[in-house]
Parts: sequence; structure tokens; C-alpha cells
Amino acid sequence: MARIAVVAGDGIGPEVVAQARKVIDAVLPGVAATEYDLGAARYHRTGEVLPESVLTELAGHDAILLGAVGDPTVPPGVLERGLLLKLRFAFDQYVNLRPSRLWPGTAGPLGSVKPGEVDLVVVREGTEGLYAGAGGALHRGTPAEIATEESLNTRHGVERVVRDAFARAGRRERRKVTLVHKTNVLTHAGSLWARTFEAVAAEHPDVTTEYQHVDAAAMFLVTQPQRYDVVVTDNLFGDILTDIAAAVTGGIGLAASGSINPDGTYPSMFEPVHGSAPDIAGRGVADPVAAVLSAALLLDQLGHADAAARVTAAVGQELAARTPGVPLHTAEVGDRLAAYAVA
Amino acid sequence: MARIAVVAGDGIGPEVVAQARKVIDAVLPGVAATEYDLGAARYHRTGEVLPESVLTELAGHDAILLGAVGDPTVPPGVLERGLLLKLRFAFDQYVNLRPSRLWPGTAGPLGSVKPGEVDLVVVREGTEGLYAGAGGALHRGTPAEIATEESLNTRHGVERVVRDAFARAGRRERRKVTLVHKTNVLTHAGSLWARTFEAVAAEHPDVTTEYQHVDAAAMFLVTQPQRYDVVVTDNLFGDILTDIAAAVTGGIGLAASGSINPDGTYPSMFEPVHGSAPDIAGRGVADPVAAVLSAALLLDQLGHADAAARVTAAVGQELAARTPGVPLHTAEVGDRLAAYAVA
Ligand SMILES: CC(C)[C@H](C(=O)O)[C@@H](O)C(=O)O
Ligand SMILES: CC(C)[C@H](C(=O)O)[C@@H](O)C(=O)O
Repeated sequence: MARIAVVAGDGIGPEVVAQARKVIDAVLPGVAATEYDLGAARYHRTGEVLPESVLTELAGHDAILLGAVGDPTVPPGVLERGLLLKLRFAFDQYVNLRPSRLWPGTAGPLGSVKPGEVDLVVVREGTEGLYAGAGGALHRGTPAEIATEESLNTRHGVERVVRDAFARAGRRERRKVTLVHKTNVLTHAGSLWARTFEAVAAEHPDVTTEYQHVDAAAMFLVTQPQRYDVVVTDNLFGDILTDIAAAVTGGIGLAASGSINPDGTYPSMFEPVHGSAPDIAGRGVADPVAAVLSAALLLDQLGHADAAARVTAAVGQELAARTPGVPLHTAEVGDRLAAYAVA
Repeated sequence: MARIAVVAGDGIGPEVVAQARKVIDAVLPGVAATEYDLGAARYHRTGEVLPESVLTELAGHDAILLGAVGDPTVPPGVLERGLLLKLRFAFDQYVNLRPSRLWPGTAGPLGSVKPGEVDLVVVREGTEGLYAGAGGALHRGTPAEIATEESLNTRHGVERVVRDAFARAGRRERRKVTLVHKTNVLTHAGSLWARTFEAVAAEHPDVTTEYQHVDAAAMFLVTQPQRYDVVVTDNLFGDILTDIAAAVTGGIGLAASGSINPDGTYPSMFEPVHGSAPDIAGRGVADPVAAVLSAALLLDQLGHADAAARVTAAVGQELAARTPGVPLHTAEVGDRLAAYAVA
């Protein structure tokens, strides 16, 4: 039976994670869960972000479920670099998976897009690019200061994530992959991505392909999000595009994500895209849907496609039944989702 | 009297530029215009993109008005790097100015945003960052390939564009500047931008400031574009954010831009954000509004704030009077705009 590590985290993290666990327990009884205390609270208490011993223990799990970490009093970057990005890199989570759907029953901000019409997934590279941490500064604090950031891209790293995107597209109805980059300006990295994409595409004649510059893709995600099926892109472009995709499909409140090591060498991590929302924490009003959808991605990754599909369908049922403006109760939503998923 | 260089370019470029010139001639009679033949057509005919002699001649003008360059048969990057970016760098056009308004009478894609509510300007750095062309590749075409792109940021370059943003904000009603970066990941460049921003902000106590990560800004541009006044950001983030801003305010068909050298050492360049649109070229149906708004930016930059304001007001009048779905005629729109501007 699967062993998962749970990092409930800060703010609304524990509240939404509790619902995700409720739903996992309903569809897949017997999952062993170990709680890990990481995030802003621990940082304030002990100064620790991610002790080496915890990293080692996490490595022994099949997957990690994370709620949200952070609060406004932690200096920016500390938990991002020390915890979230640290895990992505240490566990070689090279597929950063971010699906976006405009769910029937919900309203996105776009007048022209109808619920049900948008169903896309961004496969964002997770271990390279500008996130590599390669950069520096000279003459810091003087008028002569120069600061650099370097995007590092390897054939190894690009090819594996592009392969993942094509494999996913092959399992979807529309079978289309859009490569997003900026080949007209970032010529070296762009060429590597484009050539790799072409080579992998040649092995998948059943998959339709297209290329877009990142600025055009950002625009089309707003004007025609329906056109996308699978989008594959680099780490930073993926960071930006997935927030646009979330925005046009009802906001990050509904957005799930997985930082996946498809090889299974290390655990993958699943978390809602939203933050710890300290302003509404502890009141039992946070929407657990993003956390529950993240749990569905976790179940799918662990080979329980059927359980994952039931959880996703439960979310569809929940969202279709909601009345706009009616306040929700976190635990009640979790109860309903668990019930729908096993019905 | 001002001397401007006109690069009408390809596709609909000449059609929309003709209207922009019509309007300039109406509000500021006597501007001397010299035409330069650059773009895809010249490239196909002669293989030349931007001869050194033309660059020297262009330098002798007060400003450049460009329509659109490119067609699908020119290899990607040739005109972008060889012409557009070449001019931005050669003429030290460090302020890339992109205003976005949701004009009364027009409909954006967002259900919740009413015409008149969005009026923002992105001040995009134009001469540094990932556009510097610093990058390379090793073991190209082999499994061991690595490709890099480097973002270069100097205090000199950051400070001058941040100063420009604050100066613009000081002349606007809301007096607010939002810095957009990704300080939690791009720590070196992010720190330089943030420290510089703070230093300049301290000199402008009358201007409100805020900071947002680029992914959050991309999202808020979709969900709450009303919140922005002046946005200052780096070259690549600006490229992406301005296309989102254009998308939520009716599309790049209405978006104007200026690549500005505020020092006046070199000519600034003004162009619509849209491309050469070969599919509708030659039919007299292209909307010249973006080109005319670019002409307004040109007039403003040359010190004719009053003429610029009249052109902008003319566009407002034109857009407010349009009936959705009724086809437009490029030259008639130009005639109307010229008439409104001098009425
Ligand atoms: C918190 C931050 C480091 C992270 C990222 O940039 O990847 C976040 O924005 C995300 O998208 O998961
Ligand atoms: C054509 C291209 C080089 C250019 C850019 O990336 O700056 C364009 O997208 C723009 O925004 O003006």
C-alpha cells in the first residue's frame, strides 16, 4: 500500500489537506500517511526550512502531498528556494504538471468561453532553465553593479520533458502538443527546444504539433484558451503561463499541480497552486477543491487511474452543484467530495 | 520642423502607416518624412536586412515610424534580431512603452471589466536582460548538448528605466508604479531591480508603489487589470505582460508601442504591436488605430503633447462610434481620425 508524506504547511494548508486526505482515504483505503512539519511555522520556531534528515525521510515515501507554505513574515525566497524548489531539484521532479479546466457550473472571467470548452495541461520543465540558480552580481550596491541570471538547458533535460508531453498527448482525445518558447530572441535555448521537439514529434505521427512564441501564447491563453491541449515549455515560461491558464479558468483557487519525477526514482509532490491565504486561515471557509484535485494527480501518478478519475468526477459534480455567492464550508465540501467519489 | 523616417514595411504596414501619416499631417503640418524600404520585401529582393548606411541615415532623424515587417517566408529571427532589436540596441531605446486602455465603445474579453476602467502603461526595459544576446551552446546536436541564455542587468540600465517609470507616474492621475520581477527565484537580478526601485521610490514620496512576481502579475492582468497604472519591468517580462495587457483590452489590433531613447541622443521608434497580417494585406480593411496611436506616442515624444492628445482623443471618438461587426475601411478610418483630430 502506498506511503505518502503529508506537509500540511501554513495558513489554510492544514484545512484543505485534511479534505484531500479524507477523499484519498475514501477512494483508496489504507494509504499510510506520515505528517511532516515544514513551512513558516517551523521556520519561525526553529529557524529550520528543510533539515537534511527530513529530506532523507521524505525520499522514502511514494509521494508527497503539500498544502501551502509561507506567511507574510518570512523573508521572500526562504521557503520558495529552501523548500519548494529544493524538493523539485533534489527529487528531480522534471515534469511540473498543471492542468486547467473550465468546469461546467463555474464561470471564468472570459465572456466568450463557455464552461467545458477549456481542458488543457501545461507540462512545465521543472529542473532547468532560469531556475537553475546560476547567476551572480558584481560591484553590488554601487553604480557599477551588474547582475546576471543564466538559463541552463540540456538536451537531456529538454528531451525527457518533451517526451512526457507527447506521451500525455497520446493518451488524450485531441492529441495535440504546443511548444512555447521564444526562439526568435533566445536563439540558443530556443533552437535546442525546437530541434528536440521536432525529433520527438517525428516519433509521434499521431500527435498534432504547433509552436508559439511565449508572448503570443500568453495572448492566446486569454483570447482562445480552447485551442490548447498539451502545452510544453520551459520552467519560467511555464510559471507564467500556468498562472494565466488558472486565471482564465476560474482562478488559482481551483488549480492543482504536480511536481513529478516520472522515473519513480524519487517521490513526486502534489500541491494546490494557491498559497496559505493567512487572511482566511482557521475559519473553515477555504475551498479544498485545488487540494483535492492535486490528490487526484497523486493517485494517478501512483498508478490508481481509476481512483483519480473518480475524484476528478466528484469535483465536477461538486462544482456543477454550487450556487454562486453561497459561502462554502471546507469540511463539508470534503465530506461531499468523499461521498461523491465512492458513490 | 520634425524630420521623421518612415518604414512602412510589409503586408498591412504601408496601409496603416499611410493613415498615421495622414493624421500627423493634419495635426502638425510640415513634418518632413523620408521613406525607407526595409522588411521582408527588401530582404527577399536583395538579401539585406539593415545596411549600415541606412542605420546611419536613420540616426539623422528625430523619430522613426514603422508599420510592420515580416512575412511567413522569412526565417524566424532574421528581421526580429536584424532589424527591430538591432534598432532598439543601436539607438539605445531603453524605454519600451506600451499603453493599454479599454476604450469606451469597445469590448474586451473580460466580462467583469467595463470600458474606461483600464488605463495602464507598461514601461518595459528595452536594452538589457535576456535580450542582450548573451548565450551559447556546446556539443550542439548531440545528446550532450547544453544551451544557455544569460540575462544581463546593470544598475545603469535598470535605474534609468525605473526613473522613467516614476517620472511618467508623476504625470498621471493615479501616480502608482508596480514593479514586476521574480525576486524569489531570480535573486541576483531581482535584488538589483528591487533595490534600485526602492531607491528611486524614496525620491518620489508622491508616487504609490507595489511589487508583484511576474506570475502573479500575469494573473492579475487577467482578473483585475484595473489595478495597474504604470508597470515597470524587465525586457522579457515586459514582452509577455504587454501582450496580456493588449489581449484584455481588445487585442493587439489596438495596441501601440514606442521604443524610446528618452535622452534624445538617438531617434525613438514607434510602431503598432500587430504584425504585417499578410492574410488581409492589400484589401484596405486593416484597422489603422494602433498605427495612429503609435503616431500619437511619437508626437508626444517629440514634444507635441497637445497634438498627441488630440490624436488620442480622435481615436476615442472613432472607437466610441463604431458598431461591432460593421467592416471598416482603412483609409476612411484615417480620414475620420484626421478630421476628428483637427475639429
Ligand atoms: C513559489 C515559486 C518559487 C513557484 C515557482 O516559481 O515555480 C511558484 O510560483 C509556482 O509556480 O509553483
Ligand atoms: C519581434 C520580437 C523580437 C519582439 C520582442 O520580443 O520584443 C516583439 O515580440 C515585441 O514585443 O516587440
